[in-house]
Amino acid sequence: MMLGRYFPILEWGRTYNRSVLTNDMMAAVIVTIMLIPQSLAYALLAGLPPVVGLYASILPLVAYAIFGTSRTLAVGPVAVVSLMTASAAGAVAAQGSAEYLEAAITLAAISGVMLAILGFLRLGFLANLLSHPVISGFITASGILIATSQLKHVLGIKAGGDNWPAMLGSLASNIADINIWTLMVGVPVTLFLFWVRKGAKPALMALGLKSRAADMTAKAGPVVAVALTIIAVMVFGLEAKGVNIVGAIPQGLPPFALPSTDMSLIEKLWVPALLISIIGFVESVSVAQTLAAKRRQRIAPDQELIGLGASNIASAFSGGYPVTGGFARSVVNFDAGAETPAAGAYTAVGIALASLFLTPLLFNLPIATLAATIIVAVLSLVDLKTPGQLWRYSKADFAAHVATIGITLLAGVEMGVIAGVGVGLLLYLWRASRPHAAIVGRVPETEHFRNVERHSVFTVPHVLSIRIDESLTYLNARWLEEYVLERVAERPQLRHVILMCSAVNEIDASGLESLEAINHRLGDGGIGLHLSEVKGPVTDRLKRTHFLEELNGNLYLSQDRAFADLMKDTGEPAPPVDHYLARGMI
Amino acid sequence: MMLGRYFPILEWGRTYNRSVLTNDMMAAVIVTIMLIPQSLAYALLAGLPPVVGLYASILPLVAYAIFGTSRTLAVGPVAVVSLMTASAAGAVAAQGSAEYLEAAITLAAISGVMLAILGFLRLGFLANLLSHPVISGFITASGILIATSQLKHVLGIKAGGDNWPAMLGSLASNIADINIWTLMVGVPVTLFLFWVRKGAKPALMALGLKSRAADMTAKAGPVVAVALTIIAVMVFGLEAKGVNIVGAIPQGLPPFALPSTDMSLIEKLWVPALLISIIGFVESVSVAQTLAAKRRQRIAPDQELIGLGASNIASAFSGGYPVTGGFARSVVNFDAGAETPAAGAYTAVGIALASLFLTPLLFNLPIATLAATIIVAVLSLVDLKTPGQLWRYSKADFAAHVATIGITLLAGVEMGVIAGVGVGLLLYLWRASRPHAAIVGRVPETEHFRNVERHSVFTVPHVLSIRIDESLTYLNARWLEEYVLERVAERPQLRHVILMCSAVNEIDASGLESLEAINHRLGDGGIGLHLSEVKGPVTDRLKRTHFLEELNGNLYLSQDRAFADLMKDTGEPAPPVDHYLARGMI
Repeated sequence: MMLGRYFPILEWGRTYNRSVLTNDMMAAVIVTIMLIPQSLAYALLAGLPPVVGLYASILPLVAYAIFGTSRTLAVGPVAVVSLMTASAAGAVAAQGSAEYLEAAITLAAISGVMLAILGFLRLGFLANLLSHPVISGFITASGILIATSQLKHVLGIKAGGDNWPAMLGSLASNIADINIWTLMVGVPVTLFLFWVRKGAKPALMALGLKSRAADMTAKAGPVVAVALTIIAVMVFGLEAKGVNIVGAIPQGLPPFALPSTDMSLIEKLWVPALLISIIGFVESVSVAQTLAAKRRQRIAPDQELIGLGASNIASAFSGGYPVTGGFARSVVNFDAGAETPAAGAYTAVGIALASLFLTPLLFNLPIATLAATIIVAVLSLVDLKTPGQLWRYSKADFAAHVATIGITLLAGVEMGVIAGVGVGLLLYLWRASRPHAAIVGRVPETEHFRNVERHSVFTVPHVLSIRIDESLTYLNARWLEEYVLERVAERPQLRHVILMCSAVNEIDASGLESLEAINHRLGDGGIGLHLSEVKGPVTDRLKRTHFLEELNGNLYLSQDRAFADLMKDTGEPAPPVDHYLARGMI
Repeated sequence: MMLGRYFPILEWGRTYNRSVLTNDMMAAVIVTIMLIPQSLAYALLAGLPPVVGLYASILPLVAYAIFGTSRTLAVGPVAVVSLMTASAAGAVAAQGSAEYLEAAITLAAISGVMLAILGFLRLGFLANLLSHPVISGFITASGILIATSQLKHVLGIKAGGDNWPAMLGSLASNIADINIWTLMVGVPVTLFLFWVRKGAKPALMALGLKSRAADMTAKAGPVVAVALTIIAVMVFGLEAKGVNIVGAIPQGLPPFALPSTDMSLIEKLWVPALLISIIGFVESVSVAQTLAAKRRQRIAPDQELIGLGASNIASAFSGGYPVTGGFARSVVNFDAGAETPAAGAYTAVGIALASLFLTPLLFNLPIATLAATIIVAVLSLVDLKTPGQLWRYSKADFAAHVATIGITLLAGVEMGVIAGVGVGLLLYLWRASRPHAAIVGRVPETEHFRNVERHSVFTVPHVLSIRIDESLTYLNARWLEEYVLERVAERPQLRHVILMCSAVNEIDASGLESLEAINHRLGDGGIGLHLSEVKGPVTDRLKRTHFLEELNGNLYLSQDRAFADLMKDTGEPAPPVDHYLARGMI
């Protein structure tokens, strides 16, 4: 059982049979074909030698197949994490240097260990700190940054800049040295790939392919682009004409690499590593959940942390860089009919074979082709509808979304994530400290109580019913005291205050202190404090304190009963609370 | 009106009359007598020349009288803030150096500006981040640290250490060089002051004083101790025998000082200054609220920020260090009958006169006497009952409390506050991400629905009623999807799911996305999703989206109505939602 939790392979492995095998094989072939150009491209985006992308697509898949809980998630290098790797490694070493590669490998190791630890500590919930608006804002901004960073390869110019304005400026200032031949490769390939996304499938079906087959074939579009541009380079000798090519890729399986144990380096990298871990986990788990739901399967987020941790550690020890579950490839894997994580393992074999035998063929592959595949891939991440929707629905969420986009574009990916989380949290705490509460009255002829400002309801001057629409925690404890005492101060005839607690899901120590203070002050003024509709768990806890004995009022099961009782209060002191306890009312 | 908000003096000033004047005068005299030894002592605790304590007790009181909203709060140097000042200034300069004094003055300036800004931005709610358990834990630990730090003066030995174990160790290792004469001053004074707290009042009443008079006289206990020990030093020539004395105190009014504008210094000090501001504000506002409530007065927390900000800026420009509203002196001020902040201004005059004419008399005041007053004052802050109460009521609050105490004792006051806030927030977010929800059924013969696990209630197999006991925010959006879909997966006969939203006070964008996802997936399974008892503000927002149109189910005003409707569902599709809109049900 315990073993099964940490090694999901023991679960699905038992029922593994021939038909599942063929389906997994099928999917693996398609994903492999798709993954080869992607891996090279994302390594380029991370500022690493293309082959590192291949290394990062072998052992990590095997590790995930053993520890992962999603049947169809395909791990490997992904765009956003590659960008974050580039910015983190770029901060400690120069691109192309041995230190840069070491930093990337170390990032994978640190983030792998962090993910595993978070998993063992069951801290997956920390990913919740990234709200949907923050994530989508971050993805959009990253997409823009990535696409911009790749433009230089398509234009054949040099350009830099680590924030968006700087990138655009640097592109503009170097626009003069455009290499026409690179452009003649880059632009058509980009257009072709854009067309492939939408137009290829219908076209193939027009040629008589079945829908699913057409779909799968279309996924091979990038491979076609790769092949054609390689041929173009060879036929027209484009390298001599200034078209940058991938060049020699070391042949063979991933080397056994050791991540750095240099503390000063780890000190510099742990923050970005943590952000890479969280972003990677969130992206991966969202994909996994979406796909699992389609087949009524479930994933275990905390175990996912362990799975991704293992993948990154495996990546580090085989000379790779940070990986996570990718959206595009996972969908392909799913559509191609993968049934178990074994498909991932088979893909790993495919990539291994590729890095053994295919790499020489990629010598003449233009960088522009890879850049084009990246641009087309990430632009689909840019989402321009969300801001409008958020603005209409929730200004707070809109603010978090826009802040994340703006800061990511201006201050880079790391600051973007941090700011997004910060803004989201600040707005959340701000709302939590000013909760909603309503003065309620009875809806005529019913047992329901509604806001006096929204419904025509029945009230009496000597009873004040306040519905607290929030748990009473330290964040709003002060607010509660002020709110109740101010309402009371406005009502001289008041004899009883009923706090309707149907929406109070918790009362922490600070909330309790405030309730005691309110009870005490109302008592001084000869006003009774009563609670109605208190939830079971909350009542249980209150019973562990002296509050109920000290309460100068009662606990009522229902607001209706409380109101009925107190309405006709003649001024005698209310019976002690244990009287009600005896009647099992609480 | 606007002016009145920022200058409360304009409010109470209008009604100022003779009788109020006498009461304020009366209180001012008593507070002045109490404040003189305290100011000297706390300056000592802050590692500053005693006179700085007097400077910090003049202009700040005037500033607060103008800007403060509490009628009876007495601002000035306080124990905890003095300790924090010592640790912050000690980090950038050596005690006794000019840089150390400059750091302390600059701390007051920075924290004053910060408080004022927070006030203008109405960010008082940030103080809510400090929960009661964290504050009490911090106060207790500070009390222990302060008392320990003063022991060396009572024993007449040298000792250091910036965390508790280090302090104790250093005391133990130097215990050999105890100065017997200092001990003979320190120990009796300490015992005397402890006795004064409890025993003096009854004794004085036995001598025929009225209760209130006895109370006030007892407050002069420290002054008696000061006078007696000064005489003892002079009579027995204790200085020659190695008893440390205050020595020459520069006579005259506070100098006009300029806080440092050295950016590198400000960079080093802004974090501690922020913590000093928040701690000071929280302590001050709690005292002010308690006293205000006793006289049915109110204070305005955001304006309090401005008042305290002004006080600290005033302190900085008159050579003082960070100040805030103190508990002990405010209570004395209140009991002595102060009616308006003017009492504070009169106290300021009193202290000013003291620093003009009294300081020579204090030449022979033993440091041990001041240390004793500090020890007696802070030990009353140490609260040993709270941990037990918290343990019984809430393990989470207990954890935050104990963590704060432990880290404050081991890593100092700044880390203590940060850790306390961090732990509290982490536990809050953890709970917020795992909210309480219950499957509910109808209580027979009523319209009430209760948890099936706590009450014997009526349910039907094809309708599942889930009461969500939390607002749907990004913190629990993922949880919601998992919880609902898992409950549904367990029930094959299910036709309808009702989410009872009586406790849902808000649905943010992430929560809405999760609801849409749930609606979509249930739709795939031919299961209807219905919402009941949705609050007005929540409904209003949902109407601004497409969710209600896409909802494959209805919105019901009451859970009872929803259950009644769906119970007898024969399998026909539910009517579209706008049908209900038309009937004004939502």
